[in-house]
Amino acid sequence: MADESVIVKNQGTIFLAGPPLVKAATGEEVSAEDLGGADLHCRTSGVTDHLAHNDAHALLTARRIIANLNHTKQVQPVLTQFEEPLYSSGEIGGIVGDNLRKPFDVRQVIARIVDGSRFMEFKEHYGTSLVTGFSRLYGQPVGIIANNGILFSESAVKGAHFIELCTQRQIPLLFLQNITGFMVGKAAEAGGIAKNGAKLVTAVACANVPKFTVLIGGSFGAGNYGMCGRAYSPRFLWTWPNSRISVMGGEQAAGVLAQVTRAAKEKRGQNWSDAEEEAFKKPIMEQYDSEGHPYFASARLWDDGIIDPMDTRKILGLGLSASMNGLPFEKTRFGVFRM
Amino acid sequence: MADESVIVKNQGTIFLAGPPLVKAATGEEVSAEDLGGADLHCRTSGVTDHLAHNDAHALLTARRIIANLNHTKQVQPVLTQFEEPLYSSGEIGGIVGDNLRKPFDVRQVIARIVDGSRFMEFKEHYGTSLVTGFSRLYGQPVGIIANNGILFSESAVKGAHFIELCTQRQIPLLFLQNITGFMVGKAAEAGGIAKNGAKLVTAVACANVPKFTVLIGGSFGAGNYGMCGRAYSPRFLWTWPNSRISVMGGEQAAGVLAQVTRAAKEKRGQNWSDAEEEAFKKPIMEQYDSEGHPYFASARLWDDGIIDPMDTRKILGLGLSASMNGLPFEKTRFGVFRM
Amino acid sequence: MADESVIVKNQGTIFLAGPPLVKAATGEEVSAEDLGGADLHCRTSGVTDHLAHNDAHALLTARRIIANLNHTKQVQPVLTQFEEPLYSSGEIGGIVGDNLRKPFDVRQVIARIVDGSRFMEFKEHYGTSLVTGFSRLYGQPVGIIANNGILFSESAVKGAHFIELCTQRQIPLLFLQNITGFMVGKAAEAGGIAKNGAKLVTAVACANVPKFTVLIGGSFGAGNYGMCGRAYSPRFLWTWPNSRISVMGGEQAAGVLAQVTRAAKEKRGQNWSDAEEEAFKKPIMEQYDSEGHPYFASARLWDDGIIDPMDTRKILGLGLSASMNGLPFEKTRFGVFRM
Amino acid sequence: MADESVIVKNQGTIFLAGPPLVKAATGEEVSAEDLGGADLHCRTSGVTDHLAHNDAHALLTARRIIANLNHTKQVQPVLTQFEEPLYSSGEIGGIVGDNLRKPFDVRQVIARIVDGSRFMEFKEHYGTSLVTGFSRLYGQPVGIIANNGILFSESAVKGAHFIELCTQRQIPLLFLQNITGFMVGKAAEAGGIAKNGAKLVTAVACANVPKFTVLIGGSFGAGNYGMCGRAYSPRFLWTWPNSRISVMGGEQAAGVLAQVTRAAKEKRGQNWSDAEEEAFKKPIMEQYDSEGHPYFASARLWDDGIIDPMDTRKILGLGLSASMNGLPFEKTRFGVFRM
Amino acid sequence: MADESVIVKNQGTIFLAGPPLVKAATGEEVSAEDLGGADLHCRTSGVTDHLAHNDAHALLTARRIIANLNHTKQVQPVLTQFEEPLYSSGEIGGIVGDNLRKPFDVRQVIARIVDGSRFMEFKEHYGTSLVTGFSRLYGQPVGIIANNGILFSESAVKGAHFIELCTQRQIPLLFLQNITGFMVGKAAEAGGIAKNGAKLVTAVACANVPKFTVLIGGSFGAGNYGMCGRAYSPRFLWTWPNSRISVMGGEQAAGVLAQVTRAAKEKRGQNWSDAEEEAFKKPIMEQYDSEGHPYFASARLWDDGIIDPMDTRKILGLGLSASMNGLPFEKTRFGVFRM
Amino acid sequence: MADESVIVKNQGTIFLAGPPLVKAATGEEVSAEDLGGADLHCRTSGVTDHLAHNDAHALLTARRIIANLNHTKQVQPVLTQFEEPLYSSGEIGGIVGDNLRKPFDVRQVIARIVDGSRFMEFKEHYGTSLVTGFSRLYGQPVGIIANNGILFSESAVKGAHFIELCTQRQIPLLFLQNITGFMVGKAAEAGGIAKNGAKLVTAVACANVPKFTVLIGGSFGAGNYGMCGRAYSPRFLWTWPNSRISVMGGEQAAGVLAQVTRAAKEKRGQNWSDAEEEAFKKPIMEQYDSEGHPYFASARLWDDGIIDPMDTRKILGLGLSASMNGLPFEKTRFGVFRM
Repeated sequence: MADESVIVKNQGTIFLAGPPLVKAATGEEVSAEDLGGADLHCRTSGVTDHLAHNDAHALLTARRIIANLNHTKQVQPVLTQFEEPLYSSGEIGGIVGDNLRKPFDVRQVIARIVDGSRFMEFKEHYGTSLVTGFSRLYGQPVGIIANNGILFSESAVKGAHFIELCTQRQIPLLFLQNITGFMVGKAAEAGGIAKNGAKLVTAVACANVPKFTVLIGGSFGAGNYGMCGRAYSPRFLWTWPNSRISVMGGEQAAGVLAQVTRAAKEKRGQNWSDAEEEAFKKPIMEQYDSEGHPYFASARLWDDGIIDPMDTRKILGLGLSASMNGLPFEKTRFGVFRM
Repeated sequence: MADESVIVKNQGTIFLAGPPLVKAATGEEVSAEDLGGADLHCRTSGVTDHLAHNDAHALLTARRIIANLNHTKQVQPVLTQFEEPLYSSGEIGGIVGDNLRKPFDVRQVIARIVDGSRFMEFKEHYGTSLVTGFSRLYGQPVGIIANNGILFSESAVKGAHFIELCTQRQIPLLFLQNITGFMVGKAAEAGGIAKNGAKLVTAVACANVPKFTVLIGGSFGAGNYGMCGRAYSPRFLWTWPNSRISVMGGEQAAGVLAQVTRAAKEKRGQNWSDAEEEAFKKPIMEQYDSEGHPYFASARLWDDGIIDPMDTRKILGLGLSASMNGLPFEKTRFGVFRM
Repeated sequence: MADESVIVKNQGTIFLAGPPLVKAATGEEVSAEDLGGADLHCRTSGVTDHLAHNDAHALLTARRIIANLNHTKQVQPVLTQFEEPLYSSGEIGGIVGDNLRKPFDVRQVIARIVDGSRFMEFKEHYGTSLVTGFSRLYGQPVGIIANNGILFSESAVKGAHFIELCTQRQIPLLFLQNITGFMVGKAAEAGGIAKNGAKLVTAVACANVPKFTVLIGGSFGAGNYGMCGRAYSPRFLWTWPNSRISVMGGEQAAGVLAQVTRAAKEKRGQNWSDAEEEAFKKPIMEQYDSEGHPYFASARLWDDGIIDPMDTRKILGLGLSASMNGLPFEKTRFGVFRM
Repeated sequence: MADESVIVKNQGTIFLAGPPLVKAATGEEVSAEDLGGADLHCRTSGVTDHLAHNDAHALLTARRIIANLNHTKQVQPVLTQFEEPLYSSGEIGGIVGDNLRKPFDVRQVIARIVDGSRFMEFKEHYGTSLVTGFSRLYGQPVGIIANNGILFSESAVKGAHFIELCTQRQIPLLFLQNITGFMVGKAAEAGGIAKNGAKLVTAVACANVPKFTVLIGGSFGAGNYGMCGRAYSPRFLWTWPNSRISVMGGEQAAGVLAQVTRAAKEKRGQNWSDAEEEAFKKPIMEQYDSEGHPYFASARLWDDGIIDPMDTRKILGLGLSASMNGLPFEKTRFGVFRM
Repeated sequence: MADESVIVKNQGTIFLAGPPLVKAATGEEVSAEDLGGADLHCRTSGVTDHLAHNDAHALLTARRIIANLNHTKQVQPVLTQFEEPLYSSGEIGGIVGDNLRKPFDVRQVIARIVDGSRFMEFKEHYGTSLVTGFSRLYGQPVGIIANNGILFSESAVKGAHFIELCTQRQIPLLFLQNITGFMVGKAAEAGGIAKNGAKLVTAVACANVPKFTVLIGGSFGAGNYGMCGRAYSPRFLWTWPNSRISVMGGEQAAGVLAQVTRAAKEKRGQNWSDAEEEAFKKPIMEQYDSEGHPYFASARLWDDGIIDPMDTRKILGLGLSASMNGLPFEKTRFGVFRM
Repeated sequence: MADESVIVKNQGTIFLAGPPLVKAATGEEVSAEDLGGADLHCRTSGVTDHLAHNDAHALLTARRIIANLNHTKQVQPVLTQFEEPLYSSGEIGGIVGDNLRKPFDVRQVIARIVDGSRFMEFKEHYGTSLVTGFSRLYGQPVGIIANNGILFSESAVKGAHFIELCTQRQIPLLFLQNITGFMVGKAAEAGGIAKNGAKLVTAVACANVPKFTVLIGGSFGAGNYGMCGRAYSPRFLWTWPNSRISVMGGEQAAGVLAQVTRAAKEKRGQNWSDAEEEAFKKPIMEQYDSEGHPYFASARLWDDGIIDPMDTRKILGLGLSASMNGLPFEKTRFGVFRM
């Protein structure tokens, strides 16, 4: 289906069904080269366009194809120069650690990723469990949304407001996700956490600028939606090795299930020893541990790769640069914000 | 080059070069039917699409091809049907009266204006000092926003939400304005009345559907903005004779000015008798009475005319009909909603 | 995230986390109805919009919500009605005749072509050598521009003005061409006939509505441009058998050439008898007669066919109907009108 | 500045400055009628367009002007009419049966689904293993693409051609999928089955009209792509209970794996009895049987539901009707068709 | 309503009603800082976004906000270099003077404003009372329209033609207004001054390029419309201190009113001495003098400021530069030019 | 009709009819200068805009007009540098020669025209009688399609594929035409040469990038369509002096006609000597020779000029540069490709 295709002689083959299947289907015996080799497809069927003599020739041909795409990069004069961060990316590991329960100030991470460690924070003092603000990466502007705790109504509407600003200014969004979820309980519900959270999710879902997500810690529950998880179409979603993802934490899940089980048993007048409960909870926690691991997720294509935190700046820079080819981005039209 | 082609058997032929030319060019001898007849092109080469047995069959096939072009002609208008209100417009005067301080349920007014007195209320139980909902006028859909008391944060965001719905559905808006202002005080401010009120004003200002405003009572202070006053470009703004408009009520204004004056005098150790204060306040109240009167406003083109409340339905119907000529309305793009 | 939501009392609940999870997370104990029931969300949090008393009420409410989406389905075509002309098309031959020099009032022709013989003339008393106005053909609107004499500055700008009207209203144009040219001479030139004629030609050239031209008499000189000749892309250009087309009339051409020849001879002291002059002029006139004949033109595809004047209405009706498939026509953008 | 203007004789006047001002400015004395009356402006200056004899005439003229604005109001919907199929949908089960190997003519199925059992076939005699043509469902036009055997190069390009027609005419597409795959082997490959199949897949992938797919039999291999499987975004994809879906049939898969295994064993000089081979193949066939069943697929959301073949017409009609709300569909832009 | 807002601690306050009004309305006593200070709005209500410690911090914050607007200036390579005028702007005062009756050649003014004093005049010899042509200001192209006397039909159509050129080329327009009105009288009216003037006004009203107006002398009567007065939406309208604006000159107005009064008196057989007439005229002239003064107009926001003629070049340059951010300007679509 | 016009005093004249025609028409005697000279049209009629004193002044004025068009060239950074061909354009004559029957490899010509003699061939080994690939001319990208023999189905679809690539990438197309036609005969017809050729013609006809055609050899028959002949709207179509154009070659035409004539004679029992046949064929061949010559075609505006092959690079470069002003080109929407 490619616009142009290259095939290497005595090496590359294309066919709908290879020699064994052909033999099985029709009894015909034929070599792979004769069935779908470079000569056949370049000279007879026209299925391939460029015949390469070897790999080096194929790579050269590919470069020449790209050279003829007539593509010119969108240039913005200001982008040509930029500053490196003031703080070393090598320190990220020490800041974040591998204990998801140990809190850290996400600004420490941002300072090790963005140009000149400059971060123009938006609504610094309001909804403080969500950090929002503007930076640049290799000279390219970016709006950052990062977790610094659980999401409250104030954090959610702050995030929605900030996303509106970025879409209006055609600035890409970067989500640094480390989230255990939204605040729950009667006060939160009566305060409209459901509709305020929906504002954030609506803003994330509709924002037409390129979005990038990095899982730098936990990703649990509905917080995943508000922080641009997989279903919200970030251009790229990368994970750090220390991150974990599941609908809730393993201990929480095991605890709730145990609680429900115990209540049912007690209703039936049955007994349940602590040891039995521990035995009940253990496999649940183990399953959460293994299936919430980034290796499990990455193996199922739920992300675009596990990256070394030290490479975050570089990888984000490449992603941003690629997304800039789409400028000007189509204007964002939010749906109905439930007020 | 045609999208679809018909060929008649033993009659039609297509070829780049006919038998004589083929013979001249290559020496090959072939009949016209074998070289480019209906069977060859319908079964083997695919050059023609429909094989007809004779001319009549070919014409029938052509008609069926045209029948499948999925082409529809432009249409002429068809009139619509509607119901009169169940309640007489003659009762509006008795409901509203001429004392701005006497409250009335604005639904009583709506029931005397809209088709079949039908009003599909939106968020009936929330932010109850603002009434919002859908009706029809002479069959034309309209979204109604009407005051039923002072504006709170809840009323304001309810109004903004409703305006979003109407703009998304291309439904014109009708504002029935009878407003003394937004709620004030420390609790209101801390609750964000300023930003919530701004949501309503942003929604009103940006809504790209036709807007119509009727002053059916008081129009005081910033409430005028939220309820689509002159500066927010309603297509028409009509007033009822009982209405009054000013930045605040005359008594309030006189009271505040007297209070400030008395404080200044007392600071200077001066005396101010009640009679003096009354004499001070009287001309202020008189000025507000005369300049807040619809005759004063209408004479300065601040509205599009003072109308008899009994004619409200008819006049709104004409205005709506005129505005419908602009369909489809340009899509609304709200600015940044401060969340 | 829905635009509008319904919740049933004592039945529906919404919360980010239900009572068990809330208890697990914060220890708070609360019933489902209190945590996220219909009353809470309709009256306090505003998370839901419509409070239903039971399922039947909820379904009714949902139907009313849909009824207010202001959605209308695509429609199928409805045919239109029209009147036949009051005067018989059979009389056209008698009105026009075959002598191009005999003048006739083109309104006599129009009355035999258009619906109900109705013609709403535009600028009837100004620039009277060009007749402009609105009619209908089989119910389809059409703007007619017809010659009633030589073109003056006033006629030309009148035509340009009328074409502007038709393009703005998306009304097709019909040119009934019977033109000997623009007015010439010093007064005409000083009066700007060149720029005023250019306005007409600019208007004709740029008009983006379908154009139709019928040669009902002579078509001589630059008048052909102003009246939408071949080069101005009418959708169809038909001719009547009595019409003639050339850059000027045969007699005129012969006369001018003879005059120039005689002047040259006299300059050289040569003689030129009247008989010689007649012999000189005769072949010129004969060539003009034969090459200006519609058979000569039609044979060279300079028109789309010679039609019987009696069929003009029917043929124009078909052409108009075909062109209507292109509605809405692309908006006309005139170039620079030389003023 | 008006588009058209009316002036009443001996009554209306227009001038930049009236007689007194003119006298003051230049000393010239002139009556209002002479300076700017109806005759002057209609006959000489051209400032006004229509000369009325009195007020009544002027009003009549104004009405005629409005009548020629070519303005049409928005219209309300008008329902359409349609025929039921001539053949009963109850017969579908008997035609199709539950043995995927038993061939049937898919036209028998189409005749039991579409309006009046009318099917205007396209390229009936070419690429006959794919059936293409136009029908209607409850009056709504639809283009049908249905399998009648294995896909050859001819079938594939026929399908691509037909999809082009439908996208150009904004006609939705219905795929009746019963496909074992594309033709394989040396002749097929040399004939460009890869690029011709890619044309079909490109056409399916890019077509911007609503697409609907029904699995009425087998869905095996790459044929699933060409026939608008899940990954090609049909608006709805329904399955019949008799259908099966997998990358190839169970027996085929077991056979190929057994063949490869036997070859490997023989290479190592090992023995493999027929019983061992059968034991090897059995679980493979069983897995294919169970995982290719529509219940397995439907449980994983790979389709939008298993439907009773008798309901196919009704369910498709609803889906089509819903999709029509999106009219006009965005124009299709195919990528590069590999030729 | 701003996208982002800054507030200074212990200094800035925002509230719908301040402490006195709150006390009057609800009796609540609260300090301004507690009611709506920086801490409340940045930490609690979220009404403001950035908390500044003092004015310097606020200004720095504002600059950082602007830096994050992601705005890039439209650049045109040619704009980077420009020439200063050859003649000193200090001479403008001497050329223009303060006697509106003293004529001067407006080209003398243009030469002291534009780059290199270069002015490419358009239609120099036609309609000479209006001067039109192209120049540059700080490298930015501009079309200039300047009065050099009363407006005739020729001047008006020349202006309309020139505006067409500028809109087609996306060149901003500069109006140097010094106009006593259009030509009046029978000859002018018969010559169509009304429709020709309307062409100029139509062109001015519809031109979609940025427009700038400077009142460099008188602005009387309908000439104000043709020269892009306030109602025609120039981006900026500046006035020079010597300018005067009114519907006609004071003396003229007094004269006409006296003339009418005298005629009425004479009709009634009354006497009116010259002294009485002078006494009658004096207050009229005085009112015109005072209300036509730029201070009177500027105080009512009828212009955007009174500028020193010596600063004209610099101020226009800034205005032009700001307007260039809107490039490319939306294409101009003129309404119907009355021909 | 020009936006701006220049006229030279005592030299230029404009009139609808010159002095002799005016005299013939109305008897008026007037000099050309008085009737339509520079003074009259610049000062009185306004037909011309700029009065020049002599030719030099006129040229200067024209340059200043262009300078005020506010036109800026689309710049692409890469375009500023380019390489000259490695091979001399002086060798083209020797390669091509003047014998149309002598074949040559068109790559020899391409190497003498394009930047650095670099040519990135597309599908080099498929459909080898048509050469396709990418090059640059003065740094501007161009897609080249050149004949290297008769057109087969493979060559035609290869050309169509390549045109798709170029339109998608907004790369202009250059056709080097040297074509005797498409392959004919039963095998070709059954192989679908008609529909495959139609693909090429469809691609050429619909391609919305600028197209340029050079006739470098023969141009015979339908090959002219596929290679972007006159009717397919190349921006420019140039011819080399050695080229010939006709519906078929002269000898072929004479041969076919002789064959038909001989057959008819033989049927009637008549004799036809070889000498008679030669005499019959000679005038036919002579007519083809003379009317197929580029001088004959160029004289009838069938091309845009006969160029020296050595100038081909330079002339194409200018044409390409001019066409780049239209960037971005409107997206190509191909009609229905018959598959």
